[in-house]
Amino acid sequence: MQTITALVFNNFETLDLYGVVEMFGRLPKQYRLQFASISGSLIHNHHGVTLPTTAIASLEYPTDVLLIVGGPGTRDLVHDSEFLYELSCFSHTANWVLSVCTGSALLAKAGVLDGLRATSNKRAWQWVISQSDSVVWQPQARWVVDDKFYTSSGVSAGMDMTLGFIADRHGVGTARQIAYDVEYRWHEDRHNDEFCPR
Amino acid sequence: MQTITALVFNNFETLDLYGVVEMFGRLPKQYRLQFASISGSLIHNHHGVTLPTTAIASLEYPTDVLLIVGGPGTRDLVHDSEFLYELSCFSHTANWVLSVCTGSALLAKAGVLDGLRATSNKRAWQWVISQSDSVVWQPQARWVVDDKFYTSSGVSAGMDMTLGFIADRHGVGTARQIAYDVEYRWHEDRHNDEFCPR
Repeated sequence: MQTITALVFNNFETLDLYGVVEMFGRLPKQYRLQFASISGSLIHNHHGVTLPTTAIASLEYPTDVLLIVGGPGTRDLVHDSEFLYELSCFSHTANWVLSVCTGSALLAKAGVLDGLRATSNKRAWQWVISQSDSVVWQPQARWVVDDKFYTSSGVSAGMDMTLGFIADRHGVGTARQIAYDVEYRWHEDRHNDEFCPR
Repeated sequence: MQTITALVFNNFETLDLYGVVEMFGRLPKQYRLQFASISGSLIHNHHGVTLPTTAIASLEYPTDVLLIVGGPGTRDLVHDSEFLYELSCFSHTANWVLSVCTGSALLAKAGVLDGLRATSNKRAWQWVISQSDSVVWQPQARWVVDDKFYTSSGVSAGMDMTLGFIADRHGVGTARQIAYDVEYRWHEDRHNDEFCPR
């Protein structure tokens, strides 16, 4: 069984996180999820969502998959050197790193995407790419895979990326079955990005 | 500002709840969200999600919109007379009642959908409709509106229904803008249900 650690923070985007959780949650014998933050405190967001977290220093299990989501909270975190240092360390030790939306801005600012291809939210594109000119930013992609990093477009694209990750590990039939079971029309082609401005 | 109360329970379905939260959360000046349960305890689900809740007896605000979601936990709750009584009372006092997935099985068993049209998850259809023969069940619908009740199909259909509710209250342009902002391809036609078995 693989452990997924979602590293969350105040004012994360709701669906960035829980859309991914739903898709991985459909494979309970394959993945175990834990929610972490720097401090281990209750985390709140701008939609009224609250969740308890474990401090990353005291996680129960090592992490196979690191999930970093986006949201308004990223605007402060790109200036938070402690957070970026912890994110960098965590990314180096994880086998896979998945980001949703502006989560890739945090990875970029932490330096772990240097020289790699990545994407992000198209509604916050200029701000995201301004965080690092060492990333080979992909302006038209539902999600991007490079090395051990999966980076997705905005918010709902995280669900498509997660199904893509599951397809890469467990076969496309498994991913399609999950999409069917949650009555979700999976955007299966990661190169097809209808939300990219023309 | 309208208050939405999400009535949750152990083993609720993750995306049923948080997909709706994301869409309403995009209108922060229109809607305020609170999470409630019968006991007011920490609620856990089968995906590893935990959230704090307020006991329905001590909610801070009256409820304009009641949200009831689905998930494996509904299988026990259809036999829980205290829960069904509270759900019935809550439904009668709310201006609008929205259900996602097997949440409509709970409304049906509580008797509040008697004589009304409603839908539910197509993967759990026979179990859902067995909860009440007084509901005019709609086997092919992404979501159904009847009187003050919006009932959706499985899991991800809750996002489409919520955008439909927002369109009905605030105009279709507002709903389309939210879908665009979260890079979501909204299933705008509630009669188009590709997940209905033929």
